Amino acid sequence: MSKTTSPQIWLYDTTLRDGTQREGLSVSIEDKLRIAHRLDQLGIPFIEGGWPGANPKDVQFFWQLQENPLKQAEIVPFCSTRRPHTQASDEPMLQAILAAGTRWVTIFGKSWDLHVIEGLKTSLDENLAMIRDTIEYLISQGRRVIYDAEHWFDGYKQNPHYALQTIKTAAKAGAEWLVLCDTNGGTLPHEVSQIVSVVVREIGNTEKTLTQSPITNHQSPIPHIGIHTHNDSEMAVANAIAAVMAGAKMVQGTINGYGERCGNANLCSLIPNLQLKLGYSCISEHQLHQLTETSRFVSEVVNLAPDDHAPYVGRSAFAHKGGIHVSAVERNPLTYEHITPEQVGNRRRIVISEQSGLSNVLAKARTLGIELDKNDPQTKHILQRMKDLESEGYQFEAAEASFALLMYTALGLRQEFFEVQGFHVNCDLVEGKKSTNSLATIKVAVNGQNILEAAEGNGPVAALDAALRKALMNFYPQIADFELTDYKVRILNGNRGTSAKTRALVESGNGQQRWTTIGVSANILEASYQAVVEGLEYGLLLHFQAEKALKI
Amino acid sequence: MSKTTSPQIWLYDTTLRDGTQREGLSVSIEDKLRIAHRLDQLGIPFIEGGWPGANPKDVQFFWQLQENPLKQAEIVPFCSTRRPHTQASDEPMLQAILAAGTRWVTIFGKSWDLHVIEGLKTSLDENLAMIRDTIEYLISQGRRVIYDAEHWFDGYKQNPHYALQTIKTAAKAGAEWLVLCDTNGGTLPHEVSQIVSVVVREIGNTEKTLTQSPITNHQSPIPHIGIHTHNDSEMAVANAIAAVMAGAKMVQGTINGYGERCGNANLCSLIPNLQLKLGYSCISEHQLHQLTETSRFVSEVVNLAPDDHAPYVGRSAFAHKGGIHVSAVERNPLTYEHITPEQVGNRRRIVISEQSGLSNVLAKARTLGIELDKNDPQTKHILQRMKDLESEGYQFEAAEASFALLMYTALGLRQEFFEVQGFHVNCDLVEGKKSTNSLATIKVAVNGQNILEAAEGNGPVAALDAALRKALMNFYPQIADFELTDYKVRILNGNRGTSAKTRALVESGNGQQRWTTIGVSANILEASYQAVVEGLEYGLLLHFQAEKALKI
Repeated sequence: MSKTTSPQIWLYDTTLRDGTQREGLSVSIEDKLRIAHRLDQLGIPFIEGGWPGANPKDVQFFWQLQENPLKQAEIVPFCSTRRPHTQASDEPMLQAILAAGTRWVTIFGKSWDLHVIEGLKTSLDENLAMIRDTIEYLISQGRRVIYDAEHWFDGYKQNPHYALQTIKTAAKAGAEWLVLCDTNGGTLPHEVSQIVSVVVREIGNTEKTLTQSPITNHQSPIPHIGIHTHNDSEMAVANAIAAVMAGAKMVQGTINGYGERCGNANLCSLIPNLQLKLGYSCISEHQLHQLTETSRFVSEVVNLAPDDHAPYVGRSAFAHKGGIHVSAVERNPLTYEHITPEQVGNRRRIVISEQSGLSNVLAKARTLGIELDKNDPQTKHILQRMKDLESEGYQFEAAEASFALLMYTALGLRQEFFEVQGFHVNCDLVEGKKSTNSLATIKVAVNGQNILEAAEGNGPVAALDAALRKALMNFYPQIADFELTDYKVRILNGNRGTSAKTRALVESGNGQQRWTTIGVSANILEASYQAVVEGLEYGLLLHFQAEKALKI
Repeated sequence: MSKTTSPQIWLYDTTLRDGTQREGLSVSIEDKLRIAHRLDQLGIPFIEGGWPGANPKDVQFFWQLQENPLKQAEIVPFCSTRRPHTQASDEPMLQAILAAGTRWVTIFGKSWDLHVIEGLKTSLDENLAMIRDTIEYLISQGRRVIYDAEHWFDGYKQNPHYALQTIKTAAKAGAEWLVLCDTNGGTLPHEVSQIVSVVVREIGNTEKTLTQSPITNHQSPIPHIGIHTHNDSEMAVANAIAAVMAGAKMVQGTINGYGERCGNANLCSLIPNLQLKLGYSCISEHQLHQLTETSRFVSEVVNLAPDDHAPYVGRSAFAHKGGIHVSAVERNPLTYEHITPEQVGNRRRIVISEQSGLSNVLAKARTLGIELDKNDPQTKHILQRMKDLESEGYQFEAAEASFALLMYTALGLRQEFFEVQGFHVNCDLVEGKKSTNSLATIKVAVNGQNILEAAEGNGPVAALDAALRKALMNFYPQIADFELTDYKVRILNGNRGTSAKTRALVESGNGQQRWTTIGVSANILEASYQAVVEGLEYGLLLHFQAEKALKI
């Protein structure tokens, strides 16, 4: 299908709202900001950021985003309709939504008569008024509205007439998108297909190809239909696809399918299914190449182990075992692969002999401004070193500063600012006291001098960090500007308990730039320490590079 | 739908063959025997046990099974058709299959012309002869045959005429089941639906309800159609359902969806979808209640962490957060649950989280067998304590054991097995060496005695854990059965760098149960240590509770 004629599907990411409902997932405001910018880069047109009326942290998030706005995407706050028998304009929740300062807002309301009567304890008519007033009020305040019809499919099955009334009310009030939600996740594709067809026929915009973008051009009098599904029957992706084939034009989902209970529709599967299998257009080809990296980036930021067996983006998604199979796949990949892994930024893996891609290394070097030749022995040396380290548990996807240092070492360009000779840490839990003290002693060689320093901290890593900074401060005063902005620890092979290998990621900053370094060790302290040391070293490298550039 | 008229779907489990292709999964013969008997108990009629022609361990497995046979299920060996230009009766692979001594055998053959020519390097006619000869030979030896059409959907899309010829050949040779395989996992449900409809119309048995069981009664002249799907497009379950709705009567899949790359169709989702949602009959109601337990049993045996977010059987599949939501679900479960969790042997869980209200605490206490009164000051005290701890960074949603201990403390029911008086840890990075040593000294009071112990470990937490176990072993020998099964660390307020607060989650197990505990501290070591200590304490609590229950 040629690109110009592919019908467009509008993606709506709710990782930062519905995704964070996943049990065990919690994110800071900084995490949310990083993810939002990454999704923007991936080309997601709508990004749901949170529910400022219900969560004070989300208010902060929208404010901070105003200072450092997204490039392309529309950031959208989420909120319920007003409460029964109140004025929309008096509703503090809605004031919080307006204060988020966005162009678009998403309002969810009840579709299922049972929920209106038992949950809201109000009348069916009042629920319609709540939908109408809320949308009209937000439009009067200059907002454009997406309406999420909660429990749509269950509601429709119980009382189709009332369910249709709710979305007709939303449409009449001016909502531009009507999103049908399978909130409990129990609906099967043939039901989705049938019910979405009815809605599209009765109220939806049936234009085959959108000639106007529903983001940039205000407002068709006929709303478009969207779909929001959950995975409780392992059908979230299939249901979203069924809805699109029945005429829906917006798909809501989350990166890696994160979400409450069994999760939401997984955008990492939906996007390639829509784009590579069904010929719809969602994001650019180039952005699709970032899919695997984005999936892993998000899992790193929320500190959940990536699912190796995830479709399209998992580490095993294109893994091949066995000799004949492998040579067949190398002769003609389509015999054993449903797509080319590179289309989604993943790669084929031969399980017996781990094969890291030379092109990956070349591409990464290029992002650091280093042009490598693939026939250069140095390039092969870097690849080998990277593979060795990856098999020990290093992962350079989220630690580009460490990868840069590795590359400089291999090219003989690594500048040695200092060398840690050894350290000693003491931790005590003193009888009767609740907190422990940590004392670190460190020996560092700088410019031929051996420096011995000691410092305390409220943990062994903090004590080591303080001692190292103290030792280096006289030589490199700019270290005072560096700060550790994030620090994450992941236990690899978790089922070996406290003896397992540890991977530490440290993010450092100097006020203008941020960079991430990695350490891996069976010792949690040493893994953390490696990353801290490389973080300081890379900061110095950036400093002296900038100084050199200024002199030129 | 009444049970007597429900159309039957025949389940075919391939956990022991295709499931073991999953990267990182390996099983002993003993493991396979345990799983086979458990699947038999679950009521799976066909269990594929392995490929005796290709794998010597599988030969053993079938022999051992003959000594301790399954009660109901048919155990089935798997094998390819004979090689090109050989006699079926001379084929050692087929002799191994016969030696397995089963009633049924599964033979797979090529459907895709490209695979015949490029993979087998033979002619299209010879491939048909290979299918025919192999099946005829096995039938002449008294076997009943299931034919797996490998790469069926890709083959059909390329050359429908030839693909149909292969299964017509298998049918004519006497195969009783023709199983259409989406080997590469790239097919979407609408394609499966359309292609299976063609096959059913052209060669399949279209009887609406099977009056004769295709297991016990020999042989209808018209074969039945089966489906075998993979999850590379996150569509394995949806594709199997689409095939059934188009007339397929056998569904192949694996427990927990284990399988190569992204896995096979997940029987733990398929069975309830077929039975509870679509009114087909697969296993008895009573057997369906064992589904969650079977899923976890299999994951234990193959030593993979269960997926908490798995549909139907995951620990989070029926987890509810938030106060209003929880009281609504208790009033009328169907408002927020697509099925009743008990139907699949799972249970509702009230997640204790930041938004927790009093009703959450009461519900949670009830699951621990404690009836709290919401007006009791103790109840408010527990809630307050929980909120205080949560604002310090504790998160009880993933640490139910720590929450139980908190509740026992508040109620004055906490039993003190031991008390840590203090500890001291030493870590050294010795000059010139790459690895650090950790040495922990600990002082613990048990039954009025003060015990001092020291131990080494490959990290400070491991050293502390070892020292504590050493100190307690004489008093509580059952500690030898406890193991730390998972260990996770998350840095809170990551932007305070290494001085940030740390949250450690420790999962422990005793072979039958698993429980999770939490620790929070500015000191990473102390946070980990708190969680380790509570993990041991909770394990002891479970042990003595079980002992007490036995005595009653």
